[in-house]
Amino acid sequence: MFSKNKAKFIKSLQIKKFRTEYKQFLTEGAKSVLELINSDYVIQDLLVTGRFAREYSKILSGLTIKTEIISEQELSSISSFTSNNAAIAVASVKENLPLKITKNEYALLLDDIRDPGNLGTIIRIADWYGITKIICSDTTADFYNPKVISSSMGSFTRVNSYYCNLSEFLSNNTLPVYAADLEGKDVHHFNFAQGGYILMGNESEGLSTKIKKHITEKIHIPQYGKAESLNVAIATAVICDNLRRSKQE
Amino acid sequence: MFSKNKAKFIKSLQIKKFRTEYKQFLTEGAKSVLELINSDYVIQDLLVTGRFAREYSKILSGLTIKTEIISEQELSSISSFTSNNAAIAVASVKENLPLKITKNEYALLLDDIRDPGNLGTIIRIADWYGITKIICSDTTADFYNPKVISSSMGSFTRVNSYYCNLSEFLSNNTLPVYAADLEGKDVHHFNFAQGGYILMGNESEGLSTKIKKHITEKIHIPQYGKAESLNVAIATAVICDNLRRSKQE
Repeated sequence: MFSKNKAKFIKSLQIKKFRTEYKQFLTEGAKSVLELINSDYVIQDLLVTGRFAREYSKILSGLTIKTEIISEQELSSISSFTSNNAAIAVASVKENLPLKITKNEYALLLDDIRDPGNLGTIIRIADWYGITKIICSDTTADFYNPKVISSSMGSFTRVNSYYCNLSEFLSNNTLPVYAADLEGKDVHHFNFAQGGYILMGNESEGLSTKIKKHITEKIHIPQYGKAESLNVAIATAVICDNLRRSKQE
Repeated sequence: MFSKNKAKFIKSLQIKKFRTEYKQFLTEGAKSVLELINSDYVIQDLLVTGRFAREYSKILSGLTIKTEIISEQELSSISSFTSNNAAIAVASVKENLPLKITKNEYALLLDDIRDPGNLGTIIRIADWYGITKIICSDTTADFYNPKVISSSMGSFTRVNSYYCNLSEFLSNNTLPVYAADLEGKDVHHFNFAQGGYILMGNESEGLSTKIKKHITEKIHIPQYGKAESLNVAIATAVICDNLRRSKQE
Protein backbone atom coordinates (compact mmCIF):
# COMPACT_ATOMS: atom_id res chain seq x y z
CA MET A 1 0.00 0.00 0.00
CA PHE A 2 1.23 3.42 -1.04
CA SER A 3 1.94 5.36 2.16
CA LYS A 4 0.53 8.79 2.99
CA ASN A 5 3.95 9.94 4.16
CA LYS A 6 5.50 9.09 0.82
CA ALA A 7 2.70 10.88 -1.02
CA LYS A 8 3.28 13.93 1.16
CA PHE A 9 7.05 13.80 0.60
CA ILE A 10 6.69 13.51 -3.19
CA LYS A 11 4.20 16.37 -3.36
CA SER A 12 6.55 18.51 -1.26
CA LEU A 13 9.20 18.22 -4.00
CA GLN A 14 7.04 20.40 -6.22
CA ILE A 15 8.24 23.26 -3.98
CA LYS A 16 11.78 24.62 -4.24
CA LYS A 17 12.26 24.90 -0.45
CA PHE A 18 11.80 21.14 -0.04
CA ARG A 19 13.90 20.25 -3.11
CA THR A 20 16.73 22.29 -1.54
CA GLU A 21 16.21 20.68 1.88
CA TYR A 22 16.05 17.07 0.64
CA LYS A 23 18.34 17.53 -2.42
CA GLN A 24 15.85 15.53 -4.46
CA PHE A 25 13.52 16.33 -7.37
CA LEU A 26 10.66 14.86 -9.39
CA THR A 27 10.59 13.52 -12.92
CA GLU A 28 7.12 12.80 -14.27
CA GLY A 29 5.64 11.05 -17.30
CA ALA A 30 6.84 8.17 -19.46
CA LYS A 31 9.36 9.91 -21.73
CA SER A 32 11.08 11.91 -19.00
CA VAL A 33 11.30 8.97 -16.58
CA LEU A 34 12.75 6.71 -19.30
CA GLU A 35 15.37 9.35 -20.12
CA LEU A 36 16.16 9.69 -16.39
CA ILE A 37 16.66 5.92 -16.08
CA ASN A 38 19.02 6.12 -19.04
CA SER A 39 21.10 8.94 -17.47
CA ASP A 40 23.71 9.39 -14.75
CA TYR A 41 21.14 10.71 -12.24
CA VAL A 42 20.74 8.64 -9.09
CA ILE A 43 17.13 7.52 -8.73
CA GLN A 44 15.86 7.24 -5.16
CA ASP A 45 12.31 6.11 -5.76
CA LEU A 46 10.24 5.03 -8.74
CA LEU A 47 6.44 4.82 -8.76
CA VAL A 48 4.77 3.43 -11.85
CA THR A 49 1.39 2.23 -13.05
CA GLY A 50 0.86 -1.44 -13.85
CA ARG A 51 0.66 -0.61 -17.53
CA PHE A 52 4.01 1.23 -17.50
CA ALA A 53 5.56 -1.65 -15.52
CA ARG A 54 4.42 -4.18 -18.13
CA GLU A 55 5.41 -2.05 -21.12
CA TYR A 56 8.93 -1.40 -19.79
CA SER A 57 9.44 -4.54 -17.70
CA LYS A 58 12.82 -5.24 -19.28
CA ILE A 59 14.17 -1.77 -18.51
CA LEU A 60 12.76 -1.79 -14.96
CA SER A 61 14.13 -5.25 -14.15
CA GLY A 62 17.63 -3.94 -14.88
CA LEU A 63 17.42 -1.28 -12.17
CA THR A 64 18.96 -1.66 -8.73
CA ILE A 65 16.08 0.17 -7.04
CA LYS A 66 12.70 -1.47 -6.53
CA THR A 67 9.78 0.07 -8.41
CA GLU A 68 6.48 0.48 -6.63
CA ILE A 69 3.29 -0.11 -8.63
CA ILE A 70 0.43 2.25 -7.82
CA SER A 71 -2.86 3.08 -9.51
CA GLU A 72 -3.19 5.79 -12.16
CA GLN A 73 -5.43 7.67 -9.73
CA GLU A 74 -2.83 7.59 -6.96
CA LEU A 75 -0.11 8.63 -9.40
CA SER A 76 -2.14 11.55 -10.68
CA SER A 77 -2.89 12.66 -7.11
CA ILE A 78 0.82 13.15 -6.34
CA SER A 79 1.82 14.45 -9.77
CA SER A 80 2.17 18.08 -10.83
CA PHE A 81 0.45 17.01 -14.07
CA THR A 82 -3.35 17.04 -14.27
CA SER A 83 -3.16 13.35 -15.02
CA ASN A 84 -0.25 10.93 -15.12
CA ASN A 85 -0.79 7.40 -16.41
CA ALA A 86 2.85 6.34 -16.47
CA ALA A 87 5.46 7.08 -13.82
CA ILE A 88 7.05 9.42 -11.27
CA ALA A 89 10.68 9.17 -10.23
CA VAL A 90 12.43 10.82 -7.30
CA ALA A 91 16.12 11.42 -7.98
CA SER A 92 19.01 13.25 -6.33
CA VAL A 93 19.78 16.71 -7.64
CA LYS A 94 23.29 17.26 -8.94
CA GLU A 95 25.59 19.45 -6.88
CA ASN A 96 25.79 23.06 -8.08
CA LEU A 97 29.37 23.00 -9.34
CA PRO A 98 31.13 25.43 -11.73
CA LEU A 99 31.23 24.15 -15.32
CA LYS A 100 34.41 24.28 -17.30
CA ILE A 101 33.88 25.85 -20.73
CA THR A 102 36.68 25.29 -23.21
CA LYS A 103 37.57 27.92 -25.81
CA ASN A 104 36.16 25.78 -28.62
CA GLU A 105 32.69 25.30 -27.25
CA TYR A 106 29.54 27.32 -26.70
CA ALA A 107 27.50 27.58 -23.49
CA LEU A 108 24.35 29.54 -22.68
CA LEU A 109 24.19 32.29 -20.08
CA LEU A 110 20.70 32.96 -18.73
CA ASP A 111 20.15 36.25 -16.95
CA ASP A 112 16.95 36.06 -14.91
CA ILE A 113 14.81 33.74 -17.05
CA ARG A 114 11.80 33.47 -14.75
CA ASP A 115 9.33 31.24 -16.55
CA PRO A 116 9.92 27.50 -15.93
CA GLY A 117 8.37 26.62 -19.31
CA ASN A 118 10.85 28.92 -21.06
CA LEU A 119 13.79 27.44 -19.15
CA GLY A 120 12.70 23.87 -19.95
CA THR A 121 12.28 24.74 -23.63
CA ILE A 122 15.72 26.42 -23.66
CA ILE A 123 17.28 23.26 -22.17
CA ARG A 124 15.68 21.21 -24.97
CA ILE A 125 16.96 23.67 -27.61
CA ALA A 126 20.48 23.59 -26.11
CA ASP A 127 20.40 19.79 -26.28
CA TRP A 128 19.25 19.88 -29.93
CA TYR A 129 22.08 22.24 -30.87
CA GLY A 130 24.74 20.31 -28.96
CA ILE A 131 25.13 22.80 -26.10
CA THR A 132 25.51 20.89 -22.85
CA LYS A 133 26.23 23.67 -20.34
CA ILE A 134 23.99 26.46 -19.10
CA ILE A 135 25.13 29.09 -16.60
CA CYS A 136 22.13 30.66 -14.85
CA SER A 137 21.80 33.79 -12.72
CA ASP A 138 20.63 33.00 -9.19
CA THR A 139 17.28 34.59 -10.09
CA THR A 140 16.62 32.21 -13.00
CA ALA A 141 13.89 29.59 -12.51
CA ASP A 142 15.07 26.46 -10.71
CA PHE A 143 16.44 23.78 -13.06
CA TYR A 144 14.67 21.11 -10.94
CA ASN A 145 11.22 22.76 -11.00
CA PRO A 146 8.80 20.04 -12.26
CA LYS A 147 7.68 22.32 -15.13
CA VAL A 148 11.29 22.83 -16.22
CA ILE A 149 11.92 19.08 -16.10
CA SER A 150 8.77 18.21 -18.05
CA SER A 151 9.13 20.93 -20.71
CA SER A 152 12.76 19.93 -21.33
CA MET A 153 11.38 16.62 -22.68
CA GLY A 154 14.21 14.59 -21.20
CA SER A 155 16.97 16.99 -22.26
CA PHE A 156 17.61 17.92 -18.59
CA THR A 157 19.53 14.62 -18.38
CA ARG A 158 22.08 15.77 -20.97
CA VAL A 159 22.44 19.46 -20.15
CA ASN A 160 24.19 20.62 -16.98
CA SER A 161 23.48 23.84 -15.12
CA TYR A 162 25.45 26.07 -12.80
CA TYR A 163 23.67 28.77 -10.78
CA CYS A 164 25.72 31.76 -9.68
CA ASN A 165 25.98 35.52 -9.45
CA LEU A 166 26.24 36.06 -13.21
CA SER A 167 27.93 39.43 -12.94
CA GLU A 168 30.71 37.99 -10.74
CA PHE A 169 30.99 34.99 -13.05
CA LEU A 170 31.47 37.26 -16.06
CA SER A 171 34.11 39.36 -14.27
CA ASN A 172 36.37 36.32 -14.38
CA ASN A 173 35.56 35.31 -17.94
CA THR A 174 37.82 35.62 -20.98
CA LEU A 175 35.60 34.08 -23.68
CA PRO A 176 33.41 36.17 -26.01
CA VAL A 177 29.89 36.94 -24.76
CA TYR A 178 27.25 37.42 -27.48
CA ALA A 179 24.04 38.95 -26.19
CA ALA A 180 20.64 38.94 -27.85
CA ASP A 181 19.61 42.59 -28.12
CA LEU A 182 17.24 44.42 -30.46
CA GLU A 183 20.03 46.89 -31.25
CA GLY A 184 22.69 44.29 -32.00
CA LYS A 185 24.34 43.17 -35.24
CA ASP A 186 22.34 41.08 -37.72
CA VAL A 187 22.78 37.43 -36.72
CA HIS A 188 22.39 36.37 -40.36
CA HIS A 189 25.71 38.01 -41.19
CA PHE A 190 27.58 37.60 -37.95
CA ASN A 191 30.97 36.03 -37.52
CA PHE A 192 30.89 34.01 -34.29
CA ALA A 193 34.19 33.10 -32.60
CA GLN A 194 35.14 29.44 -32.24
CA GLY A 195 33.71 29.32 -28.73
CA GLY A 196 32.00 31.51 -26.16
CA TYR A 197 28.66 32.34 -24.63
CA ILE A 198 25.20 33.17 -25.90
CA LEU A 199 23.60 35.45 -23.30
CA MET A 200 19.81 35.73 -23.02
CA GLY A 201 17.99 38.18 -20.74
CA ASN A 202 14.77 38.34 -18.76
CA GLU A 203 11.42 37.84 -20.53
CA SER A 204 10.20 41.42 -20.08
CA GLU A 205 13.17 43.45 -18.80
CA GLY A 206 15.89 42.07 -21.08
CA LEU A 207 19.47 42.17 -19.81
CA SER A 208 20.30 43.71 -16.45
CA THR A 209 22.65 46.72 -16.27
CA LYS A 210 25.25 44.84 -14.23
CA ILE A 211 25.53 42.24 -16.95
CA LYS A 212 25.59 44.53 -19.97
CA LYS A 213 29.15 45.74 -19.41
CA HIS A 214 30.45 42.21 -19.90
CA ILE A 215 29.05 41.84 -23.43
CA THR A 216 31.55 41.39 -26.27
CA GLU A 217 29.01 41.96 -29.03
CA LYS A 218 25.26 42.41 -29.28
CA ILE A 219 23.43 40.41 -31.92
CA HIS A 220 19.84 40.58 -33.13
CA ILE A 221 17.49 38.50 -35.22
CA PRO A 222 16.31 40.52 -38.21
CA GLN A 223 12.63 41.35 -38.16
CA TYR A 224 10.61 41.16 -41.39
CA GLY A 225 7.17 41.96 -40.00
CA LYS A 226 5.65 43.92 -37.15
CA ALA A 227 5.87 41.87 -33.94
CA GLU A 228 7.83 43.86 -31.34
CA SER A 229 9.82 40.90 -30.06
CA LEU A 230 10.18 37.14 -30.00
CA ASN A 231 9.76 34.91 -26.94
CA VAL A 232 13.14 34.27 -25.25
CA ALA A 233 13.13 30.53 -26.02
CA ILE A 234 12.31 31.22 -29.68
CA ALA A 235 15.13 33.78 -29.88
CA THR A 236 17.54 31.30 -28.26
CA ALA A 237 16.70 28.68 -30.89
CA VAL A 238 17.11 31.05 -33.83
CA ILE A 239 20.46 32.30 -32.51
CA CYS A 240 21.75 28.78 -31.87
CA ASP A 241 20.66 27.78 -35.37
CA ASN A 242 22.56 30.73 -36.88
CA LEU A 243 25.60 29.96 -34.72
CA ARG A 244 25.75 26.34 -35.88
CA ARG A 245 25.04 27.31 -39.47
CA SER A 246 27.81 29.93 -39.51
CA LYS A 247 30.36 27.45 -38.22
CA GLN A 248 29.69 25.04 -41.11
CA GLU A 249 30.08 27.61 -43.84
CA MET B 1 -22.08 49.17 -11.29
CA PHE B 2 -20.65 46.22 -13.20
CA SER B 3 -23.56 43.86 -13.94
CA LYS B 4 -23.60 40.16 -13.14
CA ASN B 5 -24.99 39.41 -16.58
CA LYS B 6 -22.09 41.12 -18.26
CA ALA B 7 -19.63 39.24 -16.05
CA LYS B 8 -21.32 35.98 -16.99
CA PHE B 9 -21.28 36.84 -20.70
CA ILE B 10 -17.59 37.77 -20.66
CA LYS B 11 -16.61 34.63 -18.80
CA SER B 12 -18.63 32.55 -21.29
CA LEU B 13 -16.34 33.80 -24.09
CA GLN B 14 -13.52 31.72 -22.63
CA ILE B 15 -15.39 28.75 -24.11
CA LYS B 16 -15.39 28.09 -27.86
CA LYS B 17 -19.09 27.19 -28.01
CA PHE B 18 -20.05 30.66 -26.80
CA ARG B 19 -17.50 32.44 -28.98
CA THR B 20 -19.04 30.66 -31.98
CA GLU B 21 -22.59 31.48 -30.83
CA TYR B 22 -21.97 35.19 -30.13
CA LYS B 23 -19.21 35.71 -32.74
CA GLN B 24 -17.19 37.60 -30.13
CA PHE B 25 -13.93 36.98 -28.29
CA LEU B 26 -11.82 38.31 -25.41
CA THR B 27 -8.59 40.24 -25.44
CA GLU B 28 -6.94 40.61 -22.04
CA GLY B 29 -4.07 42.61 -20.56
CA ALA B 30 -2.58 46.00 -21.40
CA LYS B 31 -0.42 45.17 -24.40
CA SER B 32 -2.98 43.01 -26.22
CA VAL B 33 -5.85 45.45 -25.62
CA LEU B 34 -3.77 48.40 -26.88
CA GLU B 35 -2.87 46.44 -30.02
CA LEU B 36 -6.56 45.55 -30.49
CA ILE B 37 -7.56 49.23 -30.23
CA ASN B 38 -4.95 49.99 -32.87
CA SER B 39 -6.28 47.31 -35.27
CA ASP B 40 -9.21 46.81 -37.65
CA TYR B 41 -11.10 44.62 -35.14
CA VAL B 42 -14.47 45.99 -34.04
CA ILE B 43 -14.54 46.38 -30.26
CA GLN B 44 -17.91 45.79 -28.62
CA ASP B 45 -17.04 46.39 -25.00
CA LEU B 46 -14.03 47.63 -23.06
CA LEU B 47 -13.55 47.20 -19.32
CA VAL B 48 -10.54 48.83 -17.72
CA THR B 49 -9.13 49.65 -14.30
CA GLY B 50 -8.89 53.27 -13.16
CA ARG B 51 -5.13 53.13 -13.52
CA PHE B 52 -5.29 51.89 -17.13
CA ALA B 53 -7.92 54.58 -17.90
CA ARG B 54 -5.62 57.31 -16.54
CA GLU B 55 -2.49 55.97 -18.22
CA TYR B 56 -4.13 55.68 -21.65
CA SER B 57 -6.77 58.43 -21.34
CA LYS B 58 -5.79 59.98 -24.66
CA ILE B 59 -6.13 56.70 -26.56
CA LEU B 60 -9.41 55.83 -24.84
CA SER B 61 -10.95 59.25 -25.44
CA GLY B 62 -10.48 58.71 -29.17
CA LEU B 63 -12.68 55.61 -29.20
CA THR B 64 -16.30 55.58 -30.29
CA ILE B 65 -17.26 53.02 -27.65
CA LYS B 66 -17.59 53.96 -24.00
CA THR B 67 -15.12 52.30 -21.63
CA GLU B 68 -16.35 51.00 -18.31
CA ILE B 69 -14.08 51.41 -15.28
CA ILE B 70 -14.10 48.48 -12.86
CA SER B 71 -11.87 47.43 -9.97
CA GLU B 72 -8.81 45.25 -10.43
CA GLN B 73 -10.56 42.60 -8.35
CA GLU B 74 -13.63 42.60 -10.61
CA LEU B 75 -11.42 42.51 -13.70
CA SER B 76 -9.42 39.56 -12.40
CA SER B 77 -12.63 37.70 -11.51
CA ILE B 78 -13.80 37.72 -15.17
CA SER B 79 -10.35 37.26 -16.73
CA SER B 80 -8.77 34.01 -17.88
CA PHE B 81 -5.55 35.37 -16.31
CA THR B 82 -4.85 34.72 -12.61
CA SER B 83 -4.75 38.47 -12.20
CA ASN B 84 -5.44 41.33 -14.58
CA ASN B 85 -4.69 44.89 -13.51
CA ALA B 86 -5.29 46.53 -16.86
CA ALA B 87 -8.11 45.77 -19.29
CA ILE B 88 -10.42 43.32 -21.04
CA ALA B 89 -11.96 43.96 -24.42
CA VAL B 90 -14.76 42.12 -26.16
CA ALA B 91 -14.48 42.29 -29.95
CA SER B 92 -16.17 40.70 -32.96
CA VAL B 93 -14.41 37.73 -34.51
CA LYS B 94 -13.51 38.03 -38.19
CA GLU B 95 -15.44 35.93 -40.65
CA ASN B 96 -13.71 32.69 -41.65
CA LEU B 97 -12.93 33.58 -45.26
CA PRO B 98 -10.43 31.99 -47.69
CA LEU B 99 -7.15 33.93 -47.88
CA LYS B 100 -5.60 34.72 -51.21
CA ILE B 101 -1.92 33.74 -51.31
CA THR B 102 0.06 35.24 -54.19
CA LYS B 103 2.92 33.33 -55.79
CA ASN B 104 5.49 35.68 -54.28
CA GLU B 105 4.52 35.33 -50.66
CA TYR B 106 4.72 32.72 -47.91
CA ALA B 107 1.89 31.52 -45.67
CA LEU B 108 1.83 28.93 -42.89
CA LEU B 109 -0.23 25.75 -42.99
CA LEU B 110 -0.99 24.25 -39.58
CA ASP B 111 -2.10 20.64 -39.49
CA ASP B 112 -3.71 19.89 -36.14
CA ILE B 113 -1.72 22.18 -33.81
CA ARG B 114 -3.64 21.51 -30.61
CA ASP B 115 -1.93 23.59 -27.94
CA PRO B 116 -3.25 27.18 -27.75
CA GLY B 117 0.11 28.39 -26.38
CA ASN B 118 1.88 26.93 -29.42
CA LEU B 119 -0.61 28.50 -31.83
CA GLY B 120 -0.29 31.92 -30.16
CA THR B 121 3.50 31.70 -30.27
CA ILE B 122 3.38 30.67 -33.95
CA ILE B 123 1.19 33.71 -34.75
CA ARG B 124 3.78 35.94 -33.05
CA ILE B 125 6.60 34.27 -35.02
CA ALA B 126 4.68 34.67 -38.30
CA ASP B 127 4.21 38.36 -37.53
CA TRP B 128 7.95 38.76 -36.76
CA TYR B 129 8.89 37.14 -40.07
CA GLY B 130 6.35 39.11 -42.10
CA ILE B 131 3.94 36.23 -42.69
CA THR B 132 0.39 37.52 -42.39
CA LYS B 133 -1.68 34.48 -43.38
CA ILE B 134 -2.14 31.17 -41.60
CA ILE B 135 -4.28 28.35 -42.97
CA CYS B 136 -5.34 25.98 -40.18
CA SER B 137 -6.85 22.50 -40.23
CA ASP B 138 -10.28 22.40 -38.60
CA THR B 139 -8.71 20.45 -35.72
CA THR B 140 -6.17 23.19 -34.91
CA ALA B 141 -6.73 25.18 -31.69
CA ASP B 142 -9.17 28.07 -32.06
CA PHE B 143 -7.51 31.34 -33.12
CA TYR B 144 -9.79 33.22 -30.69
CA ASN B 145 -9.02 31.06 -27.63
CA PRO B 146 -7.92 33.51 -24.85
CA LYS B 147 -4.59 31.65 -24.49
CA VAL B 148 -3.91 31.99 -28.22
CA ILE B 149 -4.74 35.69 -28.11
CA SER B 150 -2.56 36.37 -25.06
CA SER B 151 0.45 34.31 -26.18
CA SER B 152 0.40 35.99 -29.61
CA MET B 153 1.34 39.23 -27.75
CA GLY B 154 -0.81 41.39 -30.00
CA SER B 155 0.27 39.73 -33.25
CA PHE B 156 -3.24 38.25 -33.71
CA THR B 157 -4.25 41.73 -34.93
CA ARG B 158 -1.85 41.54 -37.89
CA VAL B 159 -2.08 37.87 -38.86
CA ASN B 160 -5.21 36.44 -40.48
CA SER B 161 -6.38 32.87 -40.24
CA TYR B 162 -8.54 30.59 -42.35
CA TYR B 163 -9.81 27.31 -40.92
CA CYS B 164 -10.65 24.55 -43.38
CA ASN B 165 -10.29 20.93 -44.34
CA LEU B 166 -6.56 21.16 -45.05
CA SER B 167 -6.47 18.12 -47.32
CA GLU B 168 -9.20 19.58 -49.56
CA PHE B 169 -7.51 22.95 -49.49
CA LEU B 170 -4.25 21.42 -50.67
CA SER B 171 -5.98 19.50 -53.47
CA ASN B 172 -6.67 22.83 -55.13
CA ASN B 173 -3.26 24.35 -54.49
CA THR B 174 -0.53 25.00 -57.05
CA LEU B 175 2.15 26.64 -54.83
CA PRO B 176 5.05 24.67 -53.31
CA VAL B 177 4.40 23.10 -49.92
CA TYR B 178 7.48 22.70 -47.66
CA ALA B 179 6.88 20.44 -44.69
CA ALA B 180 8.94 20.18 -41.53
CA ASP B 181 9.96 16.53 -41.24
CA LEU B 182 12.85 14.82 -39.50
CA GLU B 183 13.67 13.04 -42.76
CA GLY B 184 13.64 16.14 -44.93
CA LYS B 185 16.40 18.10 -46.64
CA ASP B 186 18.74 20.26 -44.54
CA VAL B 187 17.07 23.67 -44.19
CA HIS B 188 20.50 25.32 -43.95
CA HIS B 189 21.17 24.45 -47.57
CA PHE B 190 17.69 24.56 -49.00
CA ASN B 191 16.58 26.58 -51.98
CA PHE B 192 13.09 27.90 -51.22
CA ALA B 193 10.89 29.02 -54.11
CA GLN B 194 9.79 32.66 -54.30
CA GLY B 195 6.51 31.88 -52.58
CA GLY B 196 4.57 28.98 -51.08
CA TYR B 197 3.66 27.32 -47.82
CA ILE B 198 5.48 26.17 -44.71
CA LEU B 199 3.53 23.21 -43.32
CA MET B 200 3.79 22.24 -39.64
CA GLY B 201 2.21 19.13 -38.11
CA ASN B 202 0.72 18.04 -34.82
CA GLU B 203 2.81 18.30 -31.62
CA SER B 204 3.11 14.55 -31.06
CA GLU B 205 1.83 12.85 -34.22
CA GLY B 206 3.48 15.07 -36.83
CA LEU B 207 1.78 15.33 -40.23
CA SER B 208 -1.35 13.36 -41.02
CA THR B 209 -1.32 10.80 -43.86
CA LYS B 210 -3.96 12.68 -45.87
CA ILE B 211 -1.78 15.77 -45.89
CA LYS B 212 1.55 14.12 -46.68
CA LYS B 213 0.74 13.46 -50.34
CA HIS B 214 0.46 17.20 -50.97
CA ILE B 215 4.02 17.96 -49.88
CA THR B 216 6.40 19.36 -52.51
CA GLU B 217 9.53 18.91 -50.41
CA LYS B 218 10.32 17.88 -46.84
CA ILE B 219 12.82 20.00 -44.93
CA HIS B 220 14.47 19.45 -41.58
CA ILE B 221 16.47 21.47 -39.07
CA PRO B 222 19.89 19.87 -38.59
CA GLN B 223 20.45 18.44 -35.14
CA TYR B 224 23.83 18.89 -33.44
CA GLY B 225 23.05 17.28 -30.08
CA LYS B 226 20.80 14.58 -28.70
CA ALA B 227 17.29 16.00 -28.21
CA GLU B 228 14.82 13.93 -30.25
CA SER B 229 12.83 16.87 -31.51
CA LEU B 230 12.07 20.56 -31.16
CA ASN B 231 8.78 22.06 -30.05
CA VAL B 232 6.58 22.94 -33.07
CA ALA B 233 6.70 26.70 -32.43
CA ILE B 234 10.49 26.57 -32.10
CA ALA B 235 10.75 24.63 -35.36
CA THR B 236 8.45 27.12 -37.11
CA ALA B 237 10.68 30.01 -36.03
CA VAL B 238 13.90 28.34 -37.15
CA ILE B 239 12.40 27.45 -40.55
CA CYS B 240 11.01 30.96 -41.08
CA ASP B 241 14.41 32.39 -40.17
CA ASN B 242 16.13 30.16 -42.72
CA LEU B 243 13.50 31.02 -45.34
CA ARG B 244 14.01 34.76 -44.91
CA ARG B 245 17.77 34.37 -44.72
CA SER B 246 17.92 32.33 -47.93
CA LYS B 247 15.91 34.92 -49.84
CA GLN B 248 18.44 37.69 -48.99
CA GLU B 249 21.50 35.80 -50.08
